[in-house]
Amino acid sequence: MKHTTDNQLITGLDTIFNPGSVALVGASTTFGKWGQLIASNIIAGGYKGRIFPVNPGYKEMFGLPAFEQIGKIPEPVDLAFIITPAKTVPSVLEACGQNGVKGAVIITSGFSESDQAGRDLEKEIVTIGQEKGIYIIGPNTMGIIAPYADLFATGAHSRPRKGSVAFISQSGNLGNQLTHWADQQGIGISLFVGSGNEAMITCPDYLEYLEHDPHTRIIILYIESVGHGGRFMEVATRVNRKKPVIILKGGTTEAGRTAAASHTGSMSGEDAIFRGACRQAGILNARVPSELLNLSAGFSSLPLPKGNRVGIVTLGGGWGVVTADECNERGLVVPPIPDHIVEAIGRRLPPFWSKGNPVDLVGTRDLDAPTIAVEELVKWDGIDAVMVLGVVGRDEFVHLLIESSRDADPEISREFLDQIKTLSRHYEESFIAKMVEFMEVYEKPIIGVSLARTDSGTVRPVTGRRYSGVFYQTPETGVNVLARMVAYGRRSPVASLP
Amino acid sequence: MKHTTDNQLITGLDTIFNPGSVALVGASTTFGKWGQLIASNIIAGGYKGRIFPVNPGYKEMFGLPAFEQIGKIPEPVDLAFIITPAKTVPSVLEACGQNGVKGAVIITSGFSESDQAGRDLEKEIVTIGQEKGIYIIGPNTMGIIAPYADLFATGAHSRPRKGSVAFISQSGNLGNQLTHWADQQGIGISLFVGSGNEAMITCPDYLEYLEHDPHTRIIILYIESVGHGGRFMEVATRVNRKKPVIILKGGTTEAGRTAAASHTGSMSGEDAIFRGACRQAGILNARVPSELLNLSAGFSSLPLPKGNRVGIVTLGGGWGVVTADECNERGLVVPPIPDHIVEAIGRRLPPFWSKGNPVDLVGTRDLDAPTIAVEELVKWDGIDAVMVLGVVGRDEFVHLLIESSRDADPEISREFLDQIKTLSRHYEESFIAKMVEFMEVYEKPIIGVSLARTDSGTVRPVTGRRYSGVFYQTPETGVNVLARMVAYGRRSPVASLP
Repeated sequence: MKHTTDNQLITGLDTIFNPGSVALVGASTTFGKWGQLIASNIIAGGYKGRIFPVNPGYKEMFGLPAFEQIGKIPEPVDLAFIITPAKTVPSVLEACGQNGVKGAVIITSGFSESDQAGRDLEKEIVTIGQEKGIYIIGPNTMGIIAPYADLFATGAHSRPRKGSVAFISQSGNLGNQLTHWADQQGIGISLFVGSGNEAMITCPDYLEYLEHDPHTRIIILYIESVGHGGRFMEVATRVNRKKPVIILKGGTTEAGRTAAASHTGSMSGEDAIFRGACRQAGILNARVPSELLNLSAGFSSLPLPKGNRVGIVTLGGGWGVVTADECNERGLVVPPIPDHIVEAIGRRLPPFWSKGNPVDLVGTRDLDAPTIAVEELVKWDGIDAVMVLGVVGRDEFVHLLIESSRDADPEISREFLDQIKTLSRHYEESFIAKMVEFMEVYEKPIIGVSLARTDSGTVRPVTGRRYSGVFYQTPETGVNVLARMVAYGRRSPVASLP
Repeated sequence: MKHTTDNQLITGLDTIFNPGSVALVGASTTFGKWGQLIASNIIAGGYKGRIFPVNPGYKEMFGLPAFEQIGKIPEPVDLAFIITPAKTVPSVLEACGQNGVKGAVIITSGFSESDQAGRDLEKEIVTIGQEKGIYIIGPNTMGIIAPYADLFATGAHSRPRKGSVAFISQSGNLGNQLTHWADQQGIGISLFVGSGNEAMITCPDYLEYLEHDPHTRIIILYIESVGHGGRFMEVATRVNRKKPVIILKGGTTEAGRTAAASHTGSMSGEDAIFRGACRQAGILNARVPSELLNLSAGFSSLPLPKGNRVGIVTLGGGWGVVTADECNERGLVVPPIPDHIVEAIGRRLPPFWSKGNPVDLVGTRDLDAPTIAVEELVKWDGIDAVMVLGVVGRDEFVHLLIESSRDADPEISREFLDQIKTLSRHYEESFIAKMVEFMEVYEKPIIGVSLARTDSGTVRPVTGRRYSGVFYQTPETGVNVLARMVAYGRRSPVASLP
């Protein structure tokens, strides 16, 4: 948007993302209507500020007093969610202006994404916003999530925890899924914005805000079109030097059609230029949405690697081989390890172990062996990062074994099996704590691979620690994240994470 | 192995994988010992044949009579699992020979994978096996799983359901994880073999057996070395014409070291030759273990596509764009659709819908719209496959919304919310049934993408149907599988699946 100063923009957006009160214009109690989706999410999500439902049909909604119109609310409101039909939005915005509303999230669709009348209507609301000093998010947005304000205001009711990843998405639906994945994977979010049609506030505006947001340390973007390409690249390049900016640029339906007609796999010219510009600026491009999330987990939880040399610790040989191959293909190096490390690790292993990197623990029963192997590697100045495979995740197999043992053996002690179950869980937790401690001491990333799908998610925070454990399900995911972190570290050595 | 005729080999392996009785030599009741892992898994897994634990220290184990030595078992046993120390294995095998044992799965390690003494010992057991007519699997194997015999005999206690995917792995640990993933994802298995050191029975032997196994329709292999490269490629090429053979070749630790030293990402010469040979033979190579599983789900559940033209149906625009981009990059075509299809689908959608392929259902509430859109696409002869995004998986968001609504709204009917929950589940099931029905009618694959991680797994069988629903979590996974199926279909048009 055009704004007088950066400071005004930042202050304005700060009010929107940390509002003391919200009005829900078009709130509804009808299950599944947009007005109900947004209202019930905000209320059930535990928003602490004052909430004013606005709907002339009700005296009370969700146990709160309802207001006939925004003008009847007895105090100025910081943020209005507008969920009424498109044609009513200009008058609602006028009323917001009279109330003193500072920002509006316009959920309503039927603007520039639909037809000429919609485009005209969109211009009209921008003009009203500018006249009244209302910052407008959207229209046609899926909503916002501001965990530090306990404000969950989207149609999808996932509630990722507080964290350092900000996520701006031009696709609401895709944003919903990604915040849901973040929730499932334990990735903490500082902000989510569905930017919708970006009638007033655009991607570079959000980037400028996030540049200064103290909660945000990494920014991920899903974009389909860059309205003001020049300013976008300029701002993104600047912000990326301080905080990694990771972009997934989706093609357009036009591009899809062209591609289909030409039967080739080539990028459209615009996309090729965009990606080239990102590469030059050191901005990482993600290829698919899942990659945005995986990179978020790593960048928000691990120290940046200072080089590309990887130590691998694995419970089973095959996984070590596969991981070494992946490292190899992604430009990471799996160096041989010196004799003193081979000796130190070898003390805990049977004589026929691999005696090299990857360190194959050959299924050892020595529960301290993985920790010792990781520390020997991580403290050696010949490596920059460690990957550890199959230690976290083994708990899943222990559970299965306990069940079988109970079923198969009438003589086995039930109490003993319960103890094993508890010990296995504690072991996993203490292993994670140890990995996080090593990361603090040695300032090198340790990336875990669980192999089993665990319900505990990818990111495993440890109370009081700056870094978190990160355990991807597959080696290729871990290797990809590490390779990307190495690339970012080379290009933007000034940034420090988290 | 050297064997007199193919028939003998097939009959021999058939007895091993469908044994009427098993002896567990070295069975143990000590939690976590190999003898306990294998025994408790076989018993808890519900094996229906006779089980003879052999351990001189016990009169009874797992509620079964235990035998001092294999010679004391009062009847000939089909299959012996040998879990005693390496140096005892020759005499155990001799005893097996006297009993009339037809096959032995030698779990014990300490053979050719360890040192010269181990290599000598391995030669000795092969000689004994040949003299006594005992087929040997392993040694140093993680075990076998034969679901059609209800025989689960590995150290990992996952129990994938009966199905058509056979899996041979030279890495036991990797095999364990993959069978566990198969179990979690609902992928049905016809056989799993950890082939271990392959002292006697080698990969091409298993391939020859599987070529004739009526339960097996797709074969996946994890291999690190091919002992008899010529015979392997010859057999794999032949079998692949009837049943897809998908291979993941892991590098070797040596290769990893070389790669590290040279700082390049190039393949070792041997690997490059191997992959080239596979390409020529039309054998698919997987890059990572997860891909083996994803391909298994698709190849075992869907009809083969006859071409590369894809119709895309999506609940949200962003995901359609990302999927079209992925198709594009993988050589699949997303063609424009003719007016009559646009009209037919448009009847169920608001006027501002995309009117093209991908078909963006713009979040419609019309629950029949996705089914109609898929059928309109799949029955058109201008496309060969359909991808449908976000319909299955939406149930997850419905659940979250129901919880919020309950929390936020004191007035809302609890009974109504429970009904919605049930309806949503039924809708998902009936949608899956419809997709499978379309696949039978039109003989084209329909690949689902759930976007949300669902507990129901990737493969969703429908009773009485030849095909199953397949719902990957991400579009890139679905697109990759489709691209690989297109490639296979081109090279091996005679094979029909499943």
